[in-house]
Amino acid sequence: MKKVCLVIGAGAGIGGTVGKRFAADGYHAVLARRSDEAGLQRLVTDIEDAGGSATGCLVNAIEEGAIEDLVANTEANIGPIEVVLFNLGAQIGNRSLEDTSYKAFETGWRLATFALFRVASSVLPAMETRGRGTLLVTSATAAVRGNEGQHSHAAAMGGRRMLCQTLNAEYAPRGVHVAHILIDGAVDAPDTLGKMLGPENFAKLRAARGEAHDGLLVPEHMAETYFHIAHQHRSAWTHELDLRAHSDLAWWNHR
Amino acid sequence: MKKVCLVIGAGAGIGGTVGKRFAADGYHAVLARRSDEAGLQRLVTDIEDAGGSATGCLVNAIEEGAIEDLVANTEANIGPIEVVLFNLGAQIGNRSLEDTSYKAFETGWRLATFALFRVASSVLPAMETRGRGTLLVTSATAAVRGNEGQHSHAAAMGGRRMLCQTLNAEYAPRGVHVAHILIDGAVDAPDTLGKMLGPENFAKLRAARGEAHDGLLVPEHMAETYFHIAHQHRSAWTHELDLRAHSDLAWWNHR
Amino acid sequence: MKKVCLVIGAGAGIGGTVGKRFAADGYHAVLARRSDEAGLQRLVTDIEDAGGSATGCLVNAIEEGAIEDLVANTEANIGPIEVVLFNLGAQIGNRSLEDTSYKAFETGWRLATFALFRVASSVLPAMETRGRGTLLVTSATAAVRGNEGQHSHAAAMGGRRMLCQTLNAEYAPRGVHVAHILIDGAVDAPDTLGKMLGPENFAKLRAARGEAHDGLLVPEHMAETYFHIAHQHRSAWTHELDLRAHSDLAWWNHR
Amino acid sequence: MKKVCLVIGAGAGIGGTVGKRFAADGYHAVLARRSDEAGLQRLVTDIEDAGGSATGCLVNAIEEGAIEDLVANTEANIGPIEVVLFNLGAQIGNRSLEDTSYKAFETGWRLATFALFRVASSVLPAMETRGRGTLLVTSATAAVRGNEGQHSHAAAMGGRRMLCQTLNAEYAPRGVHVAHILIDGAVDAPDTLGKMLGPENFAKLRAARGEAHDGLLVPEHMAETYFHIAHQHRSAWTHELDLRAHSDLAWWNHR
Repeated sequence: MKKVCLVIGAGAGIGGTVGKRFAADGYHAVLARRSDEAGLQRLVTDIEDAGGSATGCLVNAIEEGAIEDLVANTEANIGPIEVVLFNLGAQIGNRSLEDTSYKAFETGWRLATFALFRVASSVLPAMETRGRGTLLVTSATAAVRGNEGQHSHAAAMGGRRMLCQTLNAEYAPRGVHVAHILIDGAVDAPDTLGKMLGPENFAKLRAARGEAHDGLLVPEHMAETYFHIAHQHRSAWTHELDLRAHSDLAWWNHR
Repeated sequence: MKKVCLVIGAGAGIGGTVGKRFAADGYHAVLARRSDEAGLQRLVTDIEDAGGSATGCLVNAIEEGAIEDLVANTEANIGPIEVVLFNLGAQIGNRSLEDTSYKAFETGWRLATFALFRVASSVLPAMETRGRGTLLVTSATAAVRGNEGQHSHAAAMGGRRMLCQTLNAEYAPRGVHVAHILIDGAVDAPDTLGKMLGPENFAKLRAARGEAHDGLLVPEHMAETYFHIAHQHRSAWTHELDLRAHSDLAWWNHR
Repeated sequence: MKKVCLVIGAGAGIGGTVGKRFAADGYHAVLARRSDEAGLQRLVTDIEDAGGSATGCLVNAIEEGAIEDLVANTEANIGPIEVVLFNLGAQIGNRSLEDTSYKAFETGWRLATFALFRVASSVLPAMETRGRGTLLVTSATAAVRGNEGQHSHAAAMGGRRMLCQTLNAEYAPRGVHVAHILIDGAVDAPDTLGKMLGPENFAKLRAARGEAHDGLLVPEHMAETYFHIAHQHRSAWTHELDLRAHSDLAWWNHR
Repeated sequence: MKKVCLVIGAGAGIGGTVGKRFAADGYHAVLARRSDEAGLQRLVTDIEDAGGSATGCLVNAIEEGAIEDLVANTEANIGPIEVVLFNLGAQIGNRSLEDTSYKAFETGWRLATFALFRVASSVLPAMETRGRGTLLVTSATAAVRGNEGQHSHAAAMGGRRMLCQTLNAEYAPRGVHVAHILIDGAVDAPDTLGKMLGPENFAKLRAARGEAHDGLLVPEHMAETYFHIAHQHRSAWTHELDLRAHSDLAWWNHR
């Protein structure tokens, strides 16, 4: 039986690409995303065309029971989950305090913090029983500093980071690896950055960042590090690391 | 007219004591807490006996509209709020992931993160209009690191800290001071630590920490720093500082 | 006998002004700086004209034995040192790696890290014996993040910060307070910023930062916080805090 | 021609093992250490027996010109340096402030901070010219927090970390990757931990940490991550990551 890699937030950027990377190494990828059935099917087909295996699920993570069912169904019908990638974002762009509704603030938390808690609650006990497993969490600069206009996003991501630390403190000694992967830069991803900027500005940004297509974080290359972290021997685990394009300024630097 | 200092979370420890400190300097203290009307009345009486003025309100901050009404009523009936102390905690002791219910996790966030967002949304725009004001936020070690069993508390406090940074980034240039005060140790407070430990263990801890009563954080002394931070000139503001008893280990240290 | 406040790095900015603040409260200020005897004398005269007492010393801190002699002479001839302010900077402006000589790198360390170690070694054991005392350390953003061109300065300040933590861990339980004060912005100081920018650019910057003279860190206002930290009760000590003008961006923020 | 991987601090633990890992992938390993010619020769022989190639050098890094000559000779006689691992430690165990001599404090800096600056000054400009290269820096928990008794070590490592940030800020945009690898736990290394503890205590510790030999950081497994970091595509570089055994407490956690 194949090992299972469950991706929650499997768009065409980081999520789908990491799923492909694991599938290429023999995992069965379970790809969950909220919408775009055609895009989801393309990911599955790409994986199958490359000789791998995958299952696609449309899931609205914010709904009661949705994450819990996804995990339970995967474990029951596909196999024990070896790796989970939690890849839900909650970036809504910059909004002043007065323009940030209570609802927007709460939605940020539901997607970025509470959904992770639900995933952890659903998956980690089983991993603990098996004495093995990995929870990879994509995170953002907003988890370590709060910029103007980022009220909802930063509060949610700051909660996410501290939650990753508590999960790691509790589960690492039991053989379950929790990693907080801090994406500190723009990702070359049409489904997220592309939609936020619009096609024209996205094309401009890609052009400006260089011919070599390495001035933005490229999901295919990021996926190598996700894969590596998930395969570290438990005598030498990484809990937190950053990723950014060589040409980008680290979040702590000013010019 | 007296300046107003609104304390949200005015128990017998930090909250009430900071309220007294401001009242002693001529502020009208508005003291809000969830329960214990008698304790609240004692705080008000203490302040009045000392020649100051105060108003006590029983408010369940988690209820819809409660914070918003408290702020609106204070501004309308008492006076413009000069200083707010946000002092709600969300420590529920150590609970394993499996023993942390979704409800407990959400309550942590409602009290420690969302309530602060509601306070900020209610108070800061008026302060901005006046070009002055201070938001003091009591915070905890869990805002900077997540220990085992602290899932709800650390996620909520991590969100609180990042929210303080976004509020500061947005409001400091407009003349409103936001300070994140990291309480890194046990506070000599009967209403919180005392209740968590029970009277016997609390008495033992106090005894063990020394005759001089300075082995725990003493609210009267902490209040001096809260007061100082609120009165820094805007050319030299502190956004974050820690407080601990001299005999305590800083959170980053190990023995 | 008056309590003694020793300032190492007593220019016309932070150092001299903090010295004046302590003198105004009844301390005898011992003001040490490397050069400008006339400027030093002005500080002493200002303090005496205001009814306080002070001693000025020209000391090249980098010289072997200079700090040690200053401390020993102060303790022997003036009185037990209650407070030391270590205020030596090592900012040499931005220099690329190739333009940073080994000598410049070493000088940064000698001034910003090793001199603090020498001060601590000279002063703290006597404070420990007395069971009381305070070491205030002025620090800079470069202690928490390294920007391009800051090789010497950031390495020296990063060492300074970690040294402050080790000193605090060792001496706080013995009654000696060590505080790391992170100055995160430009200080309105003719002796440092003024010299670095030149008179014309300094005047321009001051003008640009506003009529109210509160767009730069103003030493007179900063001194209030230095004074407060030195007088915190030992049940509620601060080890680290930041200071910046309200209009300045915190080091972790980007616009 | 083979790519060159230069290891400065090539003992039997991390340094030598990372050298072997790169040699196994086709790099020529240049292994430099201060002493134990026999141990060095064993490393070279091991690599050659496995079909790789290596050169061993006894170098006292603290001596004037030693690092500079090592780099120059390697570039001139062996080939362009693709990867440098800076692996010098400066841990001298816990010593109180009074037991830390000026000499010990300075030696810590010379080994842990200044030697890295010398390596960077010697290697990075050539890498910049080639538009590629990697500087891997082994670091320690003392780079992020200063414990009691760690005056020399923490000051030196704090300097090391900030220096890594300045080097990264300056060289990453030019195509040179600088990574700060925070080793947050005990390494199963006879040359360092083994010598510090003595053979008997080292054997006890190894036994206590478990049969699976995964309760300590195992250099063979750590080397996989060093290798991975050096081979990240420049669109997705990591600057800082931690490594610890699954059973170890992260530095920020308390039990």
